[in-house]
Amino acid sequence: MGKRERVYLSVEEMPKYWYNALADLPFELDPPLNPQTKEIMKPEELEAIFPKPIVEQEVTKERYIKIPDAVLEEYAIFRPTPLIRATNLEEYLETPARIYYKYEGVSPTGSHKTNTSIPQAYYNKISGVDTLVTETGAGQWGSALSYAGLKFGLNIEVYMVKTSFEQKPMRKHLINLFNGKVTPSPSLDTEFGKKMISMDEDNPGSLGIAISEALEVVFTKKNAKYALGSVLNHVLLHQSIIGLEIKKQLEKINESADVVIGCHGGGSNLGGTILPFVPEKLSNDNIKFLACEPKSCPSLTEGEYRYDNGDTAGLTPLMKMYTLGKEFIPPKIHAGGLRYHGSAPIIARLKHEGLLDAVAFSQDETFEAAKLFAKLEGIVPAPESSHAIAGAIKEAIEAKENKEEKVIVFTLSGHGLLDLTAYS
Amino acid sequence: MGKRERVYLSVEEMPKYWYNALADLPFELDPPLNPQTKEIMKPEELEAIFPKPIVEQEVTKERYIKIPDAVLEEYAIFRPTPLIRATNLEEYLETPARIYYKYEGVSPTGSHKTNTSIPQAYYNKISGVDTLVTETGAGQWGSALSYAGLKFGLNIEVYMVKTSFEQKPMRKHLINLFNGKVTPSPSLDTEFGKKMISMDEDNPGSLGIAISEALEVVFTKKNAKYALGSVLNHVLLHQSIIGLEIKKQLEKINESADVVIGCHGGGSNLGGTILPFVPEKLSNDNIKFLACEPKSCPSLTEGEYRYDNGDTAGLTPLMKMYTLGKEFIPPKIHAGGLRYHGSAPIIARLKHEGLLDAVAFSQDETFEAAKLFAKLEGIVPAPESSHAIAGAIKEAIEAKENKEEKVIVFTLSGHGLLDLTAYS
Repeated sequence: MGKRERVYLSVEEMPKYWYNALADLPFELDPPLNPQTKEIMKPEELEAIFPKPIVEQEVTKERYIKIPDAVLEEYAIFRPTPLIRATNLEEYLETPARIYYKYEGVSPTGSHKTNTSIPQAYYNKISGVDTLVTETGAGQWGSALSYAGLKFGLNIEVYMVKTSFEQKPMRKHLINLFNGKVTPSPSLDTEFGKKMISMDEDNPGSLGIAISEALEVVFTKKNAKYALGSVLNHVLLHQSIIGLEIKKQLEKINESADVVIGCHGGGSNLGGTILPFVPEKLSNDNIKFLACEPKSCPSLTEGEYRYDNGDTAGLTPLMKMYTLGKEFIPPKIHAGGLRYHGSAPIIARLKHEGLLDAVAFSQDETFEAAKLFAKLEGIVPAPESSHAIAGAIKEAIEAKENKEEKVIVFTLSGHGLLDLTAYS
Repeated sequence: MGKRERVYLSVEEMPKYWYNALADLPFELDPPLNPQTKEIMKPEELEAIFPKPIVEQEVTKERYIKIPDAVLEEYAIFRPTPLIRATNLEEYLETPARIYYKYEGVSPTGSHKTNTSIPQAYYNKISGVDTLVTETGAGQWGSALSYAGLKFGLNIEVYMVKTSFEQKPMRKHLINLFNGKVTPSPSLDTEFGKKMISMDEDNPGSLGIAISEALEVVFTKKNAKYALGSVLNHVLLHQSIIGLEIKKQLEKINESADVVIGCHGGGSNLGGTILPFVPEKLSNDNIKFLACEPKSCPSLTEGEYRYDNGDTAGLTPLMKMYTLGKEFIPPKIHAGGLRYHGSAPIIARLKHEGLLDAVAFSQDETFEAAKLFAKLEGIVPAPESSHAIAGAIKEAIEAKENKEEKVIVFTLSGHGLLDLTAYS
């Protein structure tokens, strides 16, 4: 019983600053390039789609960025989130490792995405924006942005990958509950959507296509900006609250992490989890960072490291990343999120520099891990998060084989209650 | 920020005993009667459907009942649950009242029902039972029993009210995830089900009908027993963990409750919440107990206080309660749970003695309360639980009118993520 630890922080103990790993990493990121001219993009050019404070956060090298009070207050509705020791999983695996998971599913929309949707809505609001347009895959980001939009009085328009829109009606209801407007993508709202449909009536959609549609809407609408739920530096910055809390929580129980794990789609949950451990990583290479991704969308493990667009139409800046190609569409059978063709530039560079390991799991492997976790730990995990569980299990089994008393930490980025159809 | 209190207990602080209010209440419950003979039922007769340890708990007057270690270990997966101050709701209502809610939605199946499904599965297992048969309305109980059955190696068969089965496919998936077998009721599995269908092909089902079917299956199956998720004394006993934790949590922050609120269907969440406050109630009549129920199924506010069966076919013992009549079927439009025609004998008697107040809310009122709560507090509440929110809002507004600095406590019995279709 005493072994079943849940480590809580009080609201007062919540970090008051985000951490920017770019201040400490021993390399400069390759700059984003203008998609037309292929010239290095100036920050001002980004202001076509993002408000100024967001652009500043995208390029800053400041180590600590103060979290605005209004954002802290909204965070406090669900943060700090608990760090839980997976005692039952440890016993089941008979591993000498101690496994901890950071549970982000307690957020209002059930995933870590509110960590960045709230500040993004806040900065857009104070910059005079009326409407935020975005895309969403499985719907986690769309619901998180809708919730944040409602909090700060913004209209939210969401282009949702068509397969997910059809497979996951509950997410649509959640977006609607928070007054967001959701449209399946490709749609007839945009020229690019029309083109995609004219080429293939049954186009299942992809994140790349949905981003193109969202951007097209932004360019044609007054006082509208774009919001991205992953990939970019400012998103990973906001997500650093996850890893910062984990560090405080581990400290409370006198543990230190040997392996830090996150699932990888665009990189926001992974980055938020591992980047605050960068100082430890740089001073002690025994800490392992592990990205877990789906075999059906294996950007880090099978992608090429090169400049590519973030979207299919080629409207976004070119960024240096691991990519499966901007035209990549994951197989329709692929049920979870994590369906992005590329990766966050910071994450890609960490991988490229040998500072980050990556592993891919099949859909069957991740669902097995998810069902096991639900039964043992009493939380139904999101399909995305289940990749991290599979990674933690893999590490715990290795620790058993090597008789190593490792501390394994992963982020359970969300619950899977709105994805239950996928389990059946 | 400091105002946003979440009061946690450690696993070590979790109560080790359930509390039995029958030891302290100044009355004897009217005994259950045999449905055929109308004679007082002997405990042995109950052993046809329940294992001996459960029957003992049904009739005991012991004040404290030790929680078995195996149950404590399973509780520890999600308990103690947090007590949260609804700061945003208070500010929105501009009330001088302080509002706290006990959040039971963190349980593996998202409601308080696991508090009793776990011990019920445990006691059946140690009594040699192989199969537990039950009914479920909105599906909370069916999924909770399936989870517990999986933990202790029992087969679980669930008869689910047909309208809910159709309206809430996600619950079915959740039951299946935990290896439970679920059948819409009325079904062709039982004689009673066949009779109901022959009389009305479109019979939407009711809890009374589903209980009759479950009991019929128990009587015809070897090593099978019945499990009930509400109404009975032993269920309310198991649920006392809710109120016991609330008391510890309030003590931690030097608060004492003036109003204690629960939603009311069969009485398990309400009983679990208020009964541990019975000693305070008896020594200080300023504490108010409030039951909140739906206008479409208003057993406490509009039912008759008399003996009635718990099921439609008349197979269960007759119990003294507030009842709408055992043939009552709630209108099809009624979306939430809380669709039981009767009430727990303890709850009914408290109401009859003037120790408990009751109020009924319309579906519109509760959904408005639910949406407000989701927006302000960041948790999408179950439709059932939303009745308690509506009650807390009503009390907080009265406190404002009377300029009273009251402490209002309610149990948020579960989240509504699997009920999102109802919000649309």
